[in-house]
Amino acid sequence: MVNRQFVLAARPIGLPKESDFKMIEAPVPSPREGEALVRSLYLSVDPYMRGRMNVTASYAPHVELGEVMVCGGVGEVVESKNPNLRAGEIVVFPMGWQEFAITDGTNARKVDPKVAPVSTSLGVLGMPGMTAYIGLLEICGVKSGETVVVSGAAGAVGSIVGQIAKLKGCRVIGIAGGPKKIDYLLNECGFDAAFDYKSTENYRAAIKDLCPNRVDVYFDNVGGPISDAVLSYLNTHARIAICGQISQANDTQQATGPRMYRHLLVARAKMQGFLVFDYEERTNEVLAQMTQWVQSGKIKYREDVVEGFENMPRAFIGLFTGENIGKRVVKI
Amino acid sequence: MVNRQFVLAARPIGLPKESDFKMIEAPVPSPREGEALVRSLYLSVDPYMRGRMNVTASYAPHVELGEVMVCGGVGEVVESKNPNLRAGEIVVFPMGWQEFAITDGTNARKVDPKVAPVSTSLGVLGMPGMTAYIGLLEICGVKSGETVVVSGAAGAVGSIVGQIAKLKGCRVIGIAGGPKKIDYLLNECGFDAAFDYKSTENYRAAIKDLCPNRVDVYFDNVGGPISDAVLSYLNTHARIAICGQISQANDTQQATGPRMYRHLLVARAKMQGFLVFDYEERTNEVLAQMTQWVQSGKIKYREDVVEGFENMPRAFIGLFTGENIGKRVVKI
Repeated sequence: MVNRQFVLAARPIGLPKESDFKMIEAPVPSPREGEALVRSLYLSVDPYMRGRMNVTASYAPHVELGEVMVCGGVGEVVESKNPNLRAGEIVVFPMGWQEFAITDGTNARKVDPKVAPVSTSLGVLGMPGMTAYIGLLEICGVKSGETVVVSGAAGAVGSIVGQIAKLKGCRVIGIAGGPKKIDYLLNECGFDAAFDYKSTENYRAAIKDLCPNRVDVYFDNVGGPISDAVLSYLNTHARIAICGQISQANDTQQATGPRMYRHLLVARAKMQGFLVFDYEERTNEVLAQMTQWVQSGKIKYREDVVEGFENMPRAFIGLFTGENIGKRVVKI
Repeated sequence: MVNRQFVLAARPIGLPKESDFKMIEAPVPSPREGEALVRSLYLSVDPYMRGRMNVTASYAPHVELGEVMVCGGVGEVVESKNPNLRAGEIVVFPMGWQEFAITDGTNARKVDPKVAPVSTSLGVLGMPGMTAYIGLLEICGVKSGETVVVSGAAGAVGSIVGQIAKLKGCRVIGIAGGPKKIDYLLNECGFDAAFDYKSTENYRAAIKDLCPNRVDVYFDNVGGPISDAVLSYLNTHARIAICGQISQANDTQQATGPRMYRHLLVARAKMQGFLVFDYEERTNEVLAQMTQWVQSGKIKYREDVVEGFENMPRAFIGLFTGENIGKRVVKI
């Protein structure tokens, strides 16, 4: 039996290409004492992985050439020498882009398949859901009656941010690309309003039109000109969570744009970058709340399931061209 | 007796000119019941006044053409129909650019001339000192051992920020323009290091050189390329207080520059604009602490005193060309 893996074959310049990844076949590893072997069921593709492909100082080490690409995955224990992990149990952990992975349990969380489809442990009931929760409630401290704008609103994080904000009594405006995403936000996620940045010429006019009381909270996944527009229309004491800057993920030159810092001063606004990894100790509490919301139907989620391990690179690259609505996962 | 006043004569385009102000003579007003007449001793010129000259949405109303320019001032009560204000008492309040002003006491704070020269009520023991205190301790929450960078470091606010940071056990790096200011920071204010942006080509290299442990706190009075350099060298969980953006105060076009938001994400940094007016209820507490530091010699201050009411416009304009070291006031 072989373990198919994708390793980093070349450091991408700009948008990654399929040839930047190389599929190799390795032997399926054997668990040592205290370890378990896990077979991938779903692997996650997320924008943050683009940063790991570069040799630049970031919050986490980069992937070396020839090394297996990083990702979270959910899988089934197939062989265990760890008394806490039994064959047949489902666990989520940083599996990497491969069909089999080893865990000693310390980096793994058990998933109950009776609660929700196991793939949700990579999405609404996993890192992206928790990112939405922490960013909106902890970083932005959103309050009832406030106006919340979300960029990248139809993505794995953004679509959840908007729904939590609705549960908290906010007016929620989403920004996304293309009519299908706008339809999703308005008719499935319950956003109050949304606009399609691909068919909108003047972002600021759109924001102004949809936010009569200006913007109290901006949850930013995107950066670039969309953020410029939002930042120019802040309310006093606005809060901005910087979760991602996907519009710049593949830049080969330093992006430039208007200097918006004075807007933060005039509005006495707070802008904060955050990574959900810093809130690991809150995982159980947050996922318990998210699970309750999902089970009661208060939060809806959509998954964009790409079939087949061999399609990992294509699934990943498509994140940057806006292919997915909701959480994209690869079914192995 | 006449009351000389400066009114706004024209809305400046770019750097204000003396002809944007017009000196007029008005009758000295008479206090009504509950009011007092105050003769100016010192009037304050501060960068924030530039914003009040524009017709743009900001945190405070703009000055109308023909209206007396705004400023804080400290003066002596010369006639009072308010039982709480006696002739001869010294008060600080928003006097405006004029030799005499009326107060009903609600916007005035009494100043004890035995504590310190009354001019300090416009500087280290007034709004600028309180701005330094709030920005560094409340907004940035500075901790012992951290590296603090201050831009506009030789100004009324920056020079105090650096000294408070030293009192709190920080490593303090100042950025200012010209050798006299650098000498002031190093030899009078006790900064650990400083660099002259006017004679430095590579700001980032200078920051990197002077901040071996990267930047934990950035107190920004300036904005622009200096900020770009600092923001590119943040430590994890850095805090940035945006107090001013004087480099853009006279821009006639929207300034552009590198998009630095991703740096906030990678560092999980917090950037916050603030205005000291939002912390008015803390005035007594903060000024009591500042007074104690000044009286014990732990905080030094310098005043740049311009003589003569007629020189208000010139004194103000010089703020934007970097003329002043410490707090600039006009002695009437």
